[in-house]
Amino acid sequence: MSNEDPLVVFTPSGKRGHFPKGTPVLTAARQLGVDLDSVCGGRGICSKCQITPGYGEFAKLGVTVGDDALSEWNKVEARYDEKRGLKKGRRLGCQAKVMGDVVIDVPAESQVHKQVVRKRAEARDITMNPSVRMYYVEVQEPDMHEPSGDLERLAKALLEQWQIEDVTADLHILTGLQPILRKGGWKVTVAVHKGTDDHAPQIMHVWPGYYEGKIYGLAVDLGSTTIAAHLCDLSDGQVVASSGIMNPQIRFGEDLMSRVSYSMMNKGGAAEMTRAVREGMNALFDQIAEEAEIDKTLIMDAVFVCNPVMHHLFLGIDPFELGQAPFALGTSSSLNLRAAELDLDIHPSARVYILPCIAGHVGADAAAVALSEAPDKSDDLALVVDVGTNAEILLGNKEKVLACSSPTGPAFEGAQISSGQRAAPGAIERVEIDPVTKVARFKVIGSDLWSDDDGFGEATATTGITGICGSGIIEMVAEMRIHGIVDGPGLIGAPEQTGTDKCFLDGRTYSYMVWDGSAEGGPVITVTNRDIREIQMAKAALYSGARLLMDKFGVDHVDRVVLAGAFGAHISPKHAMVLGMIPDAPLDKVTSAGNAAGTGARIALLNTEARSEIEATVHEIHKIETAIEPRFQEHFVNASNIPNSVEPFPILRSIVTLPDVNFNTGGGGDGGAGGEGGGRRRRRRG
Amino acid sequence: MSNEDPLVVFTPSGKRGHFPKGTPVLTAARQLGVDLDSVCGGRGICSKCQITPGYGEFAKLGVTVGDDALSEWNKVEARYDEKRGLKKGRRLGCQAKVMGDVVIDVPAESQVHKQVVRKRAEARDITMNPSVRMYYVEVQEPDMHEPSGDLERLAKALLEQWQIEDVTADLHILTGLQPILRKGGWKVTVAVHKGTDDHAPQIMHVWPGYYEGKIYGLAVDLGSTTIAAHLCDLSDGQVVASSGIMNPQIRFGEDLMSRVSYSMMNKGGAAEMTRAVREGMNALFDQIAEEAEIDKTLIMDAVFVCNPVMHHLFLGIDPFELGQAPFALGTSSSLNLRAAELDLDIHPSARVYILPCIAGHVGADAAAVALSEAPDKSDDLALVVDVGTNAEILLGNKEKVLACSSPTGPAFEGAQISSGQRAAPGAIERVEIDPVTKVARFKVIGSDLWSDDDGFGEATATTGITGICGSGIIEMVAEMRIHGIVDGPGLIGAPEQTGTDKCFLDGRTYSYMVWDGSAEGGPVITVTNRDIREIQMAKAALYSGARLLMDKFGVDHVDRVVLAGAFGAHISPKHAMVLGMIPDAPLDKVTSAGNAAGTGARIALLNTEARSEIEATVHEIHKIETAIEPRFQEHFVNASNIPNSVEPFPILRSIVTLPDVNFNTGGGGDGGAGGEGGGRRRRRRG
Repeated sequence: MSNEDPLVVFTPSGKRGHFPKGTPVLTAARQLGVDLDSVCGGRGICSKCQITPGYGEFAKLGVTVGDDALSEWNKVEARYDEKRGLKKGRRLGCQAKVMGDVVIDVPAESQVHKQVVRKRAEARDITMNPSVRMYYVEVQEPDMHEPSGDLERLAKALLEQWQIEDVTADLHILTGLQPILRKGGWKVTVAVHKGTDDHAPQIMHVWPGYYEGKIYGLAVDLGSTTIAAHLCDLSDGQVVASSGIMNPQIRFGEDLMSRVSYSMMNKGGAAEMTRAVREGMNALFDQIAEEAEIDKTLIMDAVFVCNPVMHHLFLGIDPFELGQAPFALGTSSSLNLRAAELDLDIHPSARVYILPCIAGHVGADAAAVALSEAPDKSDDLALVVDVGTNAEILLGNKEKVLACSSPTGPAFEGAQISSGQRAAPGAIERVEIDPVTKVARFKVIGSDLWSDDDGFGEATATTGITGICGSGIIEMVAEMRIHGIVDGPGLIGAPEQTGTDKCFLDGRTYSYMVWDGSAEGGPVITVTNRDIREIQMAKAALYSGARLLMDKFGVDHVDRVVLAGAFGAHISPKHAMVLGMIPDAPLDKVTSAGNAAGTGARIALLNTEARSEIEATVHEIHKIETAIEPRFQEHFVNASNIPNSVEPFPILRSIVTLPDVNFNTGGGGDGGAGGEGGGRRRRRRG
Repeated sequence: MSNEDPLVVFTPSGKRGHFPKGTPVLTAARQLGVDLDSVCGGRGICSKCQITPGYGEFAKLGVTVGDDALSEWNKVEARYDEKRGLKKGRRLGCQAKVMGDVVIDVPAESQVHKQVVRKRAEARDITMNPSVRMYYVEVQEPDMHEPSGDLERLAKALLEQWQIEDVTADLHILTGLQPILRKGGWKVTVAVHKGTDDHAPQIMHVWPGYYEGKIYGLAVDLGSTTIAAHLCDLSDGQVVASSGIMNPQIRFGEDLMSRVSYSMMNKGGAAEMTRAVREGMNALFDQIAEEAEIDKTLIMDAVFVCNPVMHHLFLGIDPFELGQAPFALGTSSSLNLRAAELDLDIHPSARVYILPCIAGHVGADAAAVALSEAPDKSDDLALVVDVGTNAEILLGNKEKVLACSSPTGPAFEGAQISSGQRAAPGAIERVEIDPVTKVARFKVIGSDLWSDDDGFGEATATTGITGICGSGIIEMVAEMRIHGIVDGPGLIGAPEQTGTDKCFLDGRTYSYMVWDGSAEGGPVITVTNRDIREIQMAKAALYSGARLLMDKFGVDHVDRVVLAGAFGAHISPKHAMVLGMIPDAPLDKVTSAGNAAGTGARIALLNTEARSEIEATVHEIHKIETAIEPRFQEHFVNASNIPNSVEPFPILRSIVTLPDVNFNTGGGGDGGAGGEGGGRRRRRRG
């Protein structure tokens, strides 16, 4: 190229260069390293290389583009336009040739490494860089004089036409290759896995001719309770279908420790649970493929995130060691496996990537949250909390990231609460207590009406009012504290102390009546003092984990708090802070990240560079083991109170005033909850 | 090390260096790159590092060794000597420390890359360099403060203690690892596969503590008729057991083309044959493991050699394309596979290496012959012929190597010969015709007596005299030619022409009576003129293949001839040359290599560098396709005569004089065999 040749400027990259007249735009793009997609390699078949030429004066770019800057619309473009329709102003980059100075815009959908936009404004977009891509090649025919295998000639085509070196192929590719090459007239589309650190690139599939279909990947969040999967298009990253099922392991134990116990008590128990979860996974994949109306064998990659116990049970490693100190993981690194090794029935060569575990209690799910929320890329200090039966807590910024897990127990999931239940239609999820009457009004899942609104009865007729879910109990206790029904140490006051007969003696302590449906044969929903204790312990565990990390980081406040997990998405930041679940922070700096673990899985699925990134990040994360930190116990004892004067909550205090009541009449008994059972229990995230 | 430190000289390598007093001999060896084995890494456990110190004056080496050149015999050595016995004069290299100038001999069995001596004087020894080796390591225990997986700490131990980088592990290693590490008290023996071009090193097996046992590999020659395997010790290369079975595919067709036809005529036929051969393989492995009294799961590597059709059927590739021009192979490269992919039931992580194919008719078996006989390393010009249903022919020297295959048909295996049979007890294998009486005397397999020796009847009473095997028919026809019973063009003479009534009219032509057992109810064994035709065509195919390669090489004679294959081992060079099967060469330069393909498999099993070597060699071999070479046809026509005046056989003529007879009385009919059917038939090696 010389300066007398036409100038080609690509936008948005700004890359530019001079090219001889007649150079196809795709060729110019390749030579300049412009990210312009092509599956067919410029043969006018795939139409992935669509570009939009700009005409006229481009002052900023210093280019004036004449009407004849590109060659005329040709037959290939006309045929494509007729068959599929080319958007107005678009050209095929492999057909349009440079004839004069020109400005070429590459639209987002024509970029290989296109951005997948995430819904949350603060979240980084995902750059497409999937493990498997498709390539169209023309393969040399066999020649008796130069004998070589069909596979070797296919590999040569991939090398010469796409610079893919040293491809390998599974046996099933080999056994099917010869008829496919001949059916396609020596023109085939090949799905190629780019390879991993320990394996060369690999041919995943070969279609005769140009394959117009799509290939897919799965991002799977393998939770103890539910398994949720997103099916993604591996070329544009879009979620094609999402689906979830209950983890079939639930029949072996609701929480993780009971599953660990099951494997210890039953010979072959771990293997039984491994089988169950893999079967469940296959059922889920059937379901999601049916929903998306695709053939399951088009799923060529899958990424899994899960806590360490699920990680081991899924892999077939007995979780025995995770049940006792020093909580040794069988393996902590990320894993590149074959789907077939895990009995997963998708494409026969499909790969599986499992994110690394951070520690014995901080799993690949926490790594996925770190990938999604990227505290390690944050300027301000972020506390990321994934709330579940175990809470995984990350604290950090660009400087460093700390991680721990904390045994919150199942109270936040409605378990061990007298009227508690899972989040499901009929469960109380929002609560307000009237400052004067001290009567609770509430909303239940499935209805937008408050309980004192007209028509609430009809609106909840089908679901009923069945109990209080996790986010509901948080609001409930916080409201009770705000309105002086519960004191700082966690005692429910007597009617004469609280001024409401909603408080009533219930055994040795008082309970609070939320809803009495007994007249209509419905439930009686109350909050007992034991419920308050459970919530106190759960929130104290969460808070002391966060506080421990803050100590280790050497700070006494955080800039922002991210609540991850389905549960986190429903928590009211104000009530969580009133309860002392999370450290003091401006309310608008407490945000929900939704299923961040699932999102992390999707990022790792769509962008293989993100895999290396999170592997490096996990390596750098400082792990804190709460079980052996004396300060954790100390924080736990201090944190069991519902904030009054023990901890400084200046921001909280500027929002609400917590009444300075104390219902302990000196009778001892169940008066102080501090430290009760805390730290001795070790439960897992559900 | 300084020059004032003691001097250590290793023999036989001659490597030398100065080391501080107190340096263990093993350490000195490692630093100098001396090939001294150790599995335990110098912990005094494995005793693989035995060395023999030399004392006194070593004039040539310029060293005088005092009695105190090494530290005294220590407790570890004493204990080992007591438990197992240390050969006189031996020390453990990891225990004996350098105290003064010393000469250390490393005996062959203490070398990692020891030589495995081959029986034939002219054959190169095999250098041990197997794919899988064992390493003893001490693994760091888990630590809550520095969480990491057990696998990662094992990998770290392999890196730090053995410099093995980036090991990977199959899932079954992961699922079993934790209890093994604890059982071994964090000391384990690990079998590691060194990896391939497309895969990182891999942990194959982990044993608790120090594993004293052995691991094994299989060298398998997968023939169309028989499958033969050698079980080898992967540390010293010795053949522990050898076994063979009939290829179960025989029920689908005796020769390869009938199997190709079977797959074309029967839907699923190829898959059926694939299943059959893999089942047969497993039966063979059971048999060989039982014979060696080892656990089959200790077999961690296997090398296969086979012709292209067997190659494809074993892999599960339909051999359809090999049945027609351009004889395109599905794949021609060497293959690194998992035994499990091929349904082979040995170690769950066992690997399979299949040698590269040279061309559509010249398979991995020919590559194995090339590896074993190494024409590419020969100073003189060697013709290597592997005789079977198809003959694979290699011609070359250091300069270049040519290869082709030639459709000899099954005559050399006794098929299509009226009294022909496979080589088995009772088959005639050696023949002499009396110059005067023209009566044949012979030996049968299973007896050392000639048929006219006393006691021959008793000696062959159990086997009987059942027919003529391949090597027998060659000697028979050659003897008939030498003694004027057959003329150059291949006609058997009438009694009046040959002077013996052993010749008799048999339809339109004459036959020769070899053995008439009918009086005792035994067989009548004759050679018909059609038998002569079959042998003529077979030998013409072989000869013209060799001749074609000689043309391409630009030579008219070869320096030596190597007959490979079980059949080749039984051929009499003189008779083969009389027949015109092989080019003229000094008789002592015609040698048998035995089962060279099987030996090649064994070399590739024991020495992974030999794999790269043969891959490079195969790449360099010039392939000649006989089917499309006009000169092949021409040679074939010329070669169908049994040598008289057509071809120059000066060496042969100096040994025997072939009578210049011509029995064609001008009656036409079956008189001339030249070119009959030649080249149109395409048969495969059996």
